[in-house]
Amino acid sequence: MDNNLIRKGERLDDLNLGGLKLLQDPNQFCFGVDAVLLADFAAGAIKKDAAVMDMCSGNGIIAVLLTHKSSAKHITALEIQEGAASLAERSVRLNDLCSKVTVVNNDLKNAAEIFGKSIFDNVVCNPPYKQFGGGLINENSASAAARHEIFCTLEDVIRVSSELLAPGGKLSMIHRPERLADIIILMKKYKIEPKRLRFVHPSSGKTAAMILIEGAYCGRPWLKLEPPLYIYKENGHEYTDEINSIYERGR
Amino acid sequence: MDNNLIRKGERLDDLNLGGLKLLQDPNQFCFGVDAVLLADFAAGAIKKDAAVMDMCSGNGIIAVLLTHKSSAKHITALEIQEGAASLAERSVRLNDLCSKVTVVNNDLKNAAEIFGKSIFDNVVCNPPYKQFGGGLINENSASAAARHEIFCTLEDVIRVSSELLAPGGKLSMIHRPERLADIIILMKKYKIEPKRLRFVHPSSGKTAAMILIEGAYCGRPWLKLEPPLYIYKENGHEYTDEINSIYERGR
Repeated sequence: MDNNLIRKGERLDDLNLGGLKLLQDPNQFCFGVDAVLLADFAAGAIKKDAAVMDMCSGNGIIAVLLTHKSSAKHITALEIQEGAASLAERSVRLNDLCSKVTVVNNDLKNAAEIFGKSIFDNVVCNPPYKQFGGGLINENSASAAARHEIFCTLEDVIRVSSELLAPGGKLSMIHRPERLADIIILMKKYKIEPKRLRFVHPSSGKTAAMILIEGAYCGRPWLKLEPPLYIYKENGHEYTDEINSIYERGR
Repeated sequence: MDNNLIRKGERLDDLNLGGLKLLQDPNQFCFGVDAVLLADFAAGAIKKDAAVMDMCSGNGIIAVLLTHKSSAKHITALEIQEGAASLAERSVRLNDLCSKVTVVNNDLKNAAEIFGKSIFDNVVCNPPYKQFGGGLINENSASAAARHEIFCTLEDVIRVSSELLAPGGKLSMIHRPERLADIIILMKKYKIEPKRLRFVHPSSGKTAAMILIEGAYCGRPWLKLEPPLYIYKENGHEYTDEINSIYERGR
C-alpha cells in the first residue's frame, strides 16, 4: 500500500469488508449508514459484468463497496467536487482497484456527453437530500454540497440517469421519505418506472427516515414494496442483525 | 329500532362504538379492518361542521363510523350498487342518523353534476383495489365490484375528488402499496397534493399490506410520512394496542 497517497489530516478507514479501505477527510463529508444501505440495495440489481455509474460519488464509498458487493465489470465514480474526487481516486489506488473503478471529476449534467447515452446497466446515486433554498446552509462548502442541491437537483439526477441507462437498466437511490412523491413523479416523467421500494426506520414503530428506491428505465409499471428495514434494535443503540449482515455482506 | 328494516339473510352488527350498528349481507362484501382504519385516518382531516363525501361507500360503514369519529356536519354516502346502497340507507335509519348521513345510489362519475363542484371539505374513499383485467374475477357481482375496478378506476376516483373538493379540501384513501406510484401520479395530475402517508403492516417486520394516504386539493408540496401502523402483535393474532384504540376511538 502506497502511504504517500494519504495527505495530512486525512484518515484511512477500514470498511471491514474484504480488506477494503476508504480515505476520508474528517473536515469534509464522511460516509454514513445510508451509503452502506444504498450499496447493498443497489447490489441486488447489478448483474454479472454490468457497467455501473455511481453519481454524486463523494469520497467513492459506494463505488468501492460495490467492487466487493457486486459482480459489476466496471464502475464509474462521478463527482463534481475536486476534493472529494481526489479522495475517491486515491482510495481506488490504495485498494488496487484501478482496473475496476474509474473516478471522474466532472458535473453529472455533462455525463451523457462524456460517456455516451444508453450505455450503463445501472446507475447508483446517493444525492444531496435537501432542496436548495430549503434550509439554512452554514456548513463548509464540501459538506454543504453533499447535503444540499447546490450543484444538481433531483430532476438532474433522474434525467441524466434516464440518458445514461440502457433500456431495462436500473436506477438505485436513497433519499428522504418526504421526497417520495417528487421522486415518483420525476421517474415517471423520464420513463424510469419505480419498481422496488424499501423504507428504512430507525427502529420498529418509528417513522421511516430514509427510502431506498429502484426504478427501471422503460420498465413496466409494478411497484414492489419490500419489508421495512430497521437500523437499531428496540433498545435504540444496537444494530439489528440485518444491518450487521448488510455491513458484512459481500457478493 | 325498526326491525322491519332488516331483510332476510341480513345481519345487524354492533360496531362497538357509541352504540352504532351496521346492516350487512353475508353474501355480499362485508367491511374489513381497512374500512375502520380509513375512517379513523380520515377523521383526523375532518374539521368541525365539514361537508364530507364518502365515495364507493358500499354498505355505508365509513359514513356511519364518521358520524361518531368526526364532527362533520353532513356526510354523503355515494354508492353505485343498489343492494349495497339499500343496506347503507337502512343502516342510517336504524341508527337514527338521517339528519347526518344521506345515501345516494348513483355513479360517482356523475357526482359533480349531482352535487356541484368545489363544495366538499373532505372526500373519503375506500375504492376497489384491483385493476380491471388485473386478475380473475369469479366472485358474485356485488363482491367483485367492491374489489375490482369494474364501475370506476382509480383515475375516476381522484378526478372526481378534485372536482368535488373545495381548495384546501382533503381526499383520504386506503389502497394497496403497489398502487402508490399510480396514486401519487394521479393526485398530482388532478392538483391533489399528497400530504400524509401511513403504511399499514400486518405486524412489525412484515411488508406493508395497505397504505393510508391523504391529499390536499391545491395544497403545497410536502409529504409527511407517519409512523408505521401494525395490525397484529408479534404473536401474529392479537391486535396491537393502537388497533384496539382505533376501533374504540370516537371524536
